[in-house]
Amino acid sequence: MSSMIGENIKLSIFGESHGVGIGAVIDGLPAGEPIDFDEIAAQMARRAPGRDKTTTARRESDIPEILSGVVDGHTTGTPLCAVIRNSDTHSSDYDDIKRFPRPGHADFSAVARYGGFSDFRGGGHFSGRLTAPMVFAGAICRTILKRRGVTVGAHILDIAGTCDTPFDPVDPGIETLERLSHSAFPVINPEAEAKMRAAIEEARMSCDSVGGIVECAAMGLPSGLGDPIFGGVENRLSAAIFGIPAVKGVEFGNGFAAAHLRGSENNDAFRFEGGKVKTETNNHGGILGGITTGMPIIFRAAFKPTPSIFKEQKTVDLEKKCNAELKIKGRHDPCVAVRAVPVVEALTSFCMLDLMLGGSRYDA
Amino acid sequence: MSSMIGENIKLSIFGESHGVGIGAVIDGLPAGEPIDFDEIAAQMARRAPGRDKTTTARRESDIPEILSGVVDGHTTGTPLCAVIRNSDTHSSDYDDIKRFPRPGHADFSAVARYGGFSDFRGGGHFSGRLTAPMVFAGAICRTILKRRGVTVGAHILDIAGTCDTPFDPVDPGIETLERLSHSAFPVINPEAEAKMRAAIEEARMSCDSVGGIVECAAMGLPSGLGDPIFGGVENRLSAAIFGIPAVKGVEFGNGFAAAHLRGSENNDAFRFEGGKVKTETNNHGGILGGITTGMPIIFRAAFKPTPSIFKEQKTVDLEKKCNAELKIKGRHDPCVAVRAVPVVEALTSFCMLDLMLGGSRYDA
Amino acid sequence: MSSMIGENIKLSIFGESHGVGIGAVIDGLPAGEPIDFDEIAAQMARRAPGRDKTTTARRESDIPEILSGVVDGHTTGTPLCAVIRNSDTHSSDYDDIKRFPRPGHADFSAVARYGGFSDFRGGGHFSGRLTAPMVFAGAICRTILKRRGVTVGAHILDIAGTCDTPFDPVDPGIETLERLSHSAFPVINPEAEAKMRAAIEEARMSCDSVGGIVECAAMGLPSGLGDPIFGGVENRLSAAIFGIPAVKGVEFGNGFAAAHLRGSENNDAFRFEGGKVKTETNNHGGILGGITTGMPIIFRAAFKPTPSIFKEQKTVDLEKKCNAELKIKGRHDPCVAVRAVPVVEALTSFCMLDLMLGGSRYDA
Amino acid sequence: MSSMIGENIKLSIFGESHGVGIGAVIDGLPAGEPIDFDEIAAQMARRAPGRDKTTTARRESDIPEILSGVVDGHTTGTPLCAVIRNSDTHSSDYDDIKRFPRPGHADFSAVARYGGFSDFRGGGHFSGRLTAPMVFAGAICRTILKRRGVTVGAHILDIAGTCDTPFDPVDPGIETLERLSHSAFPVINPEAEAKMRAAIEEARMSCDSVGGIVECAAMGLPSGLGDPIFGGVENRLSAAIFGIPAVKGVEFGNGFAAAHLRGSENNDAFRFEGGKVKTETNNHGGILGGITTGMPIIFRAAFKPTPSIFKEQKTVDLEKKCNAELKIKGRHDPCVAVRAVPVVEALTSFCMLDLMLGGSRYDA
Repeated sequence: MSSMIGENIKLSIFGESHGVGIGAVIDGLPAGEPIDFDEIAAQMARRAPGRDKTTTARRESDIPEILSGVVDGHTTGTPLCAVIRNSDTHSSDYDDIKRFPRPGHADFSAVARYGGFSDFRGGGHFSGRLTAPMVFAGAICRTILKRRGVTVGAHILDIAGTCDTPFDPVDPGIETLERLSHSAFPVINPEAEAKMRAAIEEARMSCDSVGGIVECAAMGLPSGLGDPIFGGVENRLSAAIFGIPAVKGVEFGNGFAAAHLRGSENNDAFRFEGGKVKTETNNHGGILGGITTGMPIIFRAAFKPTPSIFKEQKTVDLEKKCNAELKIKGRHDPCVAVRAVPVVEALTSFCMLDLMLGGSRYDA
Repeated sequence: MSSMIGENIKLSIFGESHGVGIGAVIDGLPAGEPIDFDEIAAQMARRAPGRDKTTTARRESDIPEILSGVVDGHTTGTPLCAVIRNSDTHSSDYDDIKRFPRPGHADFSAVARYGGFSDFRGGGHFSGRLTAPMVFAGAICRTILKRRGVTVGAHILDIAGTCDTPFDPVDPGIETLERLSHSAFPVINPEAEAKMRAAIEEARMSCDSVGGIVECAAMGLPSGLGDPIFGGVENRLSAAIFGIPAVKGVEFGNGFAAAHLRGSENNDAFRFEGGKVKTETNNHGGILGGITTGMPIIFRAAFKPTPSIFKEQKTVDLEKKCNAELKIKGRHDPCVAVRAVPVVEALTSFCMLDLMLGGSRYDA
Repeated sequence: MSSMIGENIKLSIFGESHGVGIGAVIDGLPAGEPIDFDEIAAQMARRAPGRDKTTTARRESDIPEILSGVVDGHTTGTPLCAVIRNSDTHSSDYDDIKRFPRPGHADFSAVARYGGFSDFRGGGHFSGRLTAPMVFAGAICRTILKRRGVTVGAHILDIAGTCDTPFDPVDPGIETLERLSHSAFPVINPEAEAKMRAAIEEARMSCDSVGGIVECAAMGLPSGLGDPIFGGVENRLSAAIFGIPAVKGVEFGNGFAAAHLRGSENNDAFRFEGGKVKTETNNHGGILGGITTGMPIIFRAAFKPTPSIFKEQKTVDLEKKCNAELKIKGRHDPCVAVRAVPVVEALTSFCMLDLMLGGSRYDA
Repeated sequence: MSSMIGENIKLSIFGESHGVGIGAVIDGLPAGEPIDFDEIAAQMARRAPGRDKTTTARRESDIPEILSGVVDGHTTGTPLCAVIRNSDTHSSDYDDIKRFPRPGHADFSAVARYGGFSDFRGGGHFSGRLTAPMVFAGAICRTILKRRGVTVGAHILDIAGTCDTPFDPVDPGIETLERLSHSAFPVINPEAEAKMRAAIEEARMSCDSVGGIVECAAMGLPSGLGDPIFGGVENRLSAAIFGIPAVKGVEFGNGFAAAHLRGSENNDAFRFEGGKVKTETNNHGGILGGITTGMPIIFRAAFKPTPSIFKEQKTVDLEKKCNAELKIKGRHDPCVAVRAVPVVEALTSFCMLDLMLGGSRYDA
C-alpha cells in the first residue's frame, strides 16, 4: 500500500499537489485528548512555503479542515480526517512532465508504476506538498505526547557542509527541543543560520540547489518500548522518515561513524543515576536491540539537494523516444532540508506516540 | 509485533539463541518454485560461525529442517516453515546477564520490555543467531528471483576505515554480484581482504572489536516497483535491514554524501540506451520517489563494533541496584560485519521478491 | 483499528453522522480505471434515505466530492479520497443519548470504549450514515469489476418472514443481478415487494420495526481466488459485511441449513460443462476451502430490526446511576434491510476486487 | 496471506496434513504468563481423533513441542512457536486426489489456486488436522484469560436436527462453561449426547455424514472492547471462526432469528444491577456496535456435514478432462462438529485475548 504507516495508530496520507485537496486520516488515537489548534497552526506555518528566499515563492493558506474525529476540541477516538484544499496552483508549469521526466524526481518511475495515469501536475502524490498533512498529524501527536512527558525537536545539522552544533546525545535539553520545534530556521548555534542561509542563497543564485542533514531528538520516553527484530524503534522510525521526499539516509546514535569505532569506544556504560539506570554516553541513540533504553532517541536524516534546479538538464522525450534537454520552470526551494525539519519532527512524534500506545499493552 | 515483515510475502522469525530452536515462516510464496538445497546450504555456511579467527568459535550445524510448504522439492504456495535446532550452547556463560546487563546489548532494554521474563541466555531472541533463519529465507527468495532475472550481492565496503572498492552504481556487474554472494569474505578488491583481516585481528588481540559498512546491490529489477510515501523501496528495505542486530545506519545511492552535493551534481540525467531509458549516473541508487527506476538498487548499512568485548566494562547490578563492573566471557566475533554480508543479501532478496510480487498486481 | 479493511486494496471509513463530513480513502486501486459517475450517483441514490415511507425522512444530498486519486475521469493509482458533507442534521434530537443510552444501539458500549468522548449525535461513527462512503467505494469497485467480467447483485430475501424467491445458486442470472443492483426495492419476485412494504408499514404504524435477510451473489469470478485458513473468501467477506450496522449473522451457500443435511446431499458433484469444471449444485456458495471454485458466490446477511423504535423503552440514567425510561425521537427507518441492499453489494464488490487483485500475484 | 490472524497478538498456522509437521507461531503474547501444560494436553486430547466411533480412526500423538517463547514455564513475550510432527499418515490413500477432486473438499480450488503444486495428501494445508495448532494456541490464551477473569466454553447445540439446550444468553454459567470446555462430548443437557451419537452412528452406517451447530460463550469480558465498523467483535470473531474447515455460517446473539423479530422484541433493555449496567435480555450476544457491552458473548457456528463420505460420488478426471466417479477411502469423522467444539473455543479464546490486549490501550 502506498501511503499508510503505524501499528497502534495508523496514519494514512492522500492527495496530489495540484488536485482538489490533500489530507490525512489518523485512526486509533486515544479518546478525550485536547486538540491544540495553535500548535497545529504554528507547525503548519513552519512547513509552509513562501516565507523567505530560502523557500519556494508558492503561497498556500494550508489551513486543515478537520472533518471527523474531534468534538468540542477533543479527540473522539474514532478516525480523525483533515483536509487541506489546494489553491494557488500553476498547473501549466507542469504540462510537459509526463513527456520529459525531470531528473531526480519521481516522474519517470511514476510512468513505469502507474502507466501514465498518475497525476503529474506538481509531482502529484509524490510532491513535497504531501508533507503538509504529515505536519498536521504530527502536531496532534505532539500535544498528546506532551501530556505524557515526551518532547520532540530537530535542527538543521548541516547544509552543504555548513554545520550546526550537534545535540548532546546524553541530554539535548528539553528547553532546546521546545525552542527548536517552534523555530522557523531551527539551529542550536545561532551563528549557523546566517552561514547556512548564505550557502542556500549562493546555490539559488547559480540556479542550483543544496542538500542537508536534519538531526532529531525525542526525550522523555520510558525504557522498554518497541519490539525486537523487525519491530524495533529504528525499523519503524526509518520506515516513516524515508516517507519524506528527498531523504536518502537515516542513522541512529553514532550511525555510520560507529563503523570506525572500537567496541570499547562505542559501548555505552550503564550507571545508576538518581536511582535510575542511565548510560554515561548515548552512542546508541537511546535504542538497544530495537527497544528504548530511556535515554534520548537521537537520529539523523540526510536530504539530497532539491532536484528542481533551473540549469538545463539532460532527459528523455518519452513520446518521441529520444534524448532531450529540459529546463525546469516553476517555484522551488533551493534547499528542502529547512522546511523538512518540522516534517521530521512530525513523523517522529507520530512514531513515538505509536510506541507509547503499544508499550503499555504488555503491562496488562 | 516483534518479528514479522513483508507486504506481499510475510517473513516471521522465531526462536532464542539457547532455546530449543529457531526458525522462520514464509507465507505467500508463489507455488511451484524449485527449492535449491545447495544454495541454502551455501548461504547458511557463509553466515555460520566458527570458520576462522574473524568469527566466533561457536560451531553450529545450522541445518534447517523444512517442516511445511515444500513437496517434491517445490514450493506448495502455503506457509513454508523451517526450524534450526540449537546445539553447542554454553548457557552457563550467560548466567549473570539478567543481573548485570552488557553494554551495547539488548539485555537492559529487554528487562524493561519484558519485565525479566525474556530469555537472556545468549541474548535470546535478540541474538545474532536469529539471522540464521533470515539467511535461510533469503536463499529461498534468491532462487525465485534468479528465475525472474534478479541478482543480489553485497560486499564489505569498510572495516574500521579499511575500504574495499565501492560498486560502480551504474553497473555493479552481475558476475561480480554472483561471485560476492558466494564468497566467505566478500570484497571486490582482493587486496582488501588481508588488510581487513589484519584490522579485525588487531582488535581481537586487544580484547576489542571493530565496526564496518556493508554495501549491497540488486540488479535486474524492472522499473515501476514500490509505492509512494511510506511504501517506497527505501522504507521497506530499511525496515528490514534495521532488523539485523548492530545496524545503526542505512543509506541509498549517494546517501549522506548527497547532503554535500549540489542538485546539478546529484541529479541523474535520463538517456535512451539500447531503446531503454537509463540514467547516466545512479546517484539515487535505482530509486526515485520510492519507486524503482530500472537502474541497480544500491545501498549501504553501517554496523557498529561488536558490543561483546573482553575488556572490563562498567555496568549496573540490577539486583542490588548499584554500579558494577563486568567482564564478558563466551565466544564472540570481533567484527559482525563479515558474517552480516549474507544476512544483508538475504533480507534484500526477501524485499526484492516482495516488491516483484506486488508490482505485477497493477497490470491486471 | 476501527475502520479499515482489505488486503490488496484498503478501504478506510471516517466521519460521524452529525459532524462536518464523512468519507472514504481507497488505497491500492489499479491505475487508469475509468470512473463511472452515473453509477456512483445511482448507487448513492439507492442507499439515500427519504425516498418513501419505508425509510427515514432525513434528506441528504449525499454527493461525494472526490479530493484525490482521480484525474481526467480515471484512477491515478494513488489513494482516492472522497468526502460527503453532512447537512440536514437535527443534533438536538440526540442531546440525551450520552446520558440515556438507547437499547440496541452502540451508545452504551461507546461510553465504555471512549470514556464519553465519542460523538453521540446521531450515533456518531456508529451511525448507519457511515454506509454512504461504503456505497461510494463499492460503486468505484463495481465498475472496475465489470471490466473484468464480474457482476454483483443482491435482493431482499426476507422481511419479517415475508420472503422473496431465493437465487438459483447455480445460475443467479447476470441480467437479474444487473437489474437488482439498480433497483430501489430489489426483489426477484415482483409480488414480494407489496407484501414486504405492507409488513414494514404495519411495524411503523405500531411504532415498531422489523428485521430482514439480504441475499447477495457475485458472478464471473475465476476459480482459485482467496487463501486458506484465515484468508478465505468467507473470512474476508464476513469481516467486511459485519461492518454494516445491524448485521448479526452471515452464511455462505447452504449456511446454517447445511447443519441439517447429510454429506451426500450437501456435496456438490463436479462435472465438465463446455470444457470447464462446474458443480451440478452450488451448496457451497462458490467457495471450497476458502477458495473460489468458479461457481457463483452466494451468501446471506441477517439484519436485526431497527433499534430506534418509538415505543417507550427501559434504559439507564448514566449520570444519576439509576434506571430510567426512554422514548426515541428523530427520523428512523422501520426496516434497515431495504437500504442495506446496496451496502451489501458495495462491500461485496470491494471484497471481490480485493480478491481479483491478489489472485493474479501467484501467476508471476 | 493465507494463515495469519489477529491484531494485538498474531496467530500464524503452518503445515500440511501429511508433511513433516504442523504448528503455530504466536507473536505478541504478554511476558511472564505461566504455561499450563496440563491444560494444553487436555485441550489437544479433546480435539484428537481416534477416541471413539464418532471420530476418525486415525491416531495421533499430537504432542506439541514448544521451540521458542517459553522459559522456565513462562512466556518470554517473544514469538512462541510450537510444532506437532505428523505420524501415522497413510499417504497412499490420497494418491488420486489431485486428479479426481473430492466433492465438498478444497482439492479442486487448490488446483486452481496453486496450479497443482500444493500438497494434496490428506488435504494438505486445508486439512482439518490444521486445527490442532489452533487448539494449542487457544489453550495458551485460555490460561492467560483465566488469570484475567475470562472464561470461554462451547457445546454441540445441534447435530442433524437433534438439539441440546441452548445457553441462557444472560448467564450461561461459569461452571457450565468450565465443564463444557473440559468435556469430550460437550452438551448442556446430558440426555442429548446419546441421541446425537445415535444420529452420527446412523449416518456412518449409511456411508454418509451429518452437519451440526456449535454454540459458544465467553464470560467476564469488560465492556468497551473492540472497534467500530470493520474492527468489531463480530468482524474479528467471524474472520477467525470461518478459518475452521466446514464452517459455513456464523451468527451472534439472536442472529438470523432477529430477522423475524420486531425491534421491541429484539432490543435489550438496560438496567442497573448491583451497581453495574446490565441488559435484561442478551439478544445481541454481548455486542453493540461491534463493542462489548459486558454481557456474555454468545455466537453460533454452522458446520456442514463431513464431505468425506463413503458413497460413490460424481467428480471429474482433471487429467483426461472428462467426468468420472469417485469412492473415498481413508478414515474420516462422520460429523466434524464434535471435534470442532474445542477448536471453536480455541479461536474464541485467541480473539478474546486479542481484544483484551487491545482494549487497555485507550486508557493510557
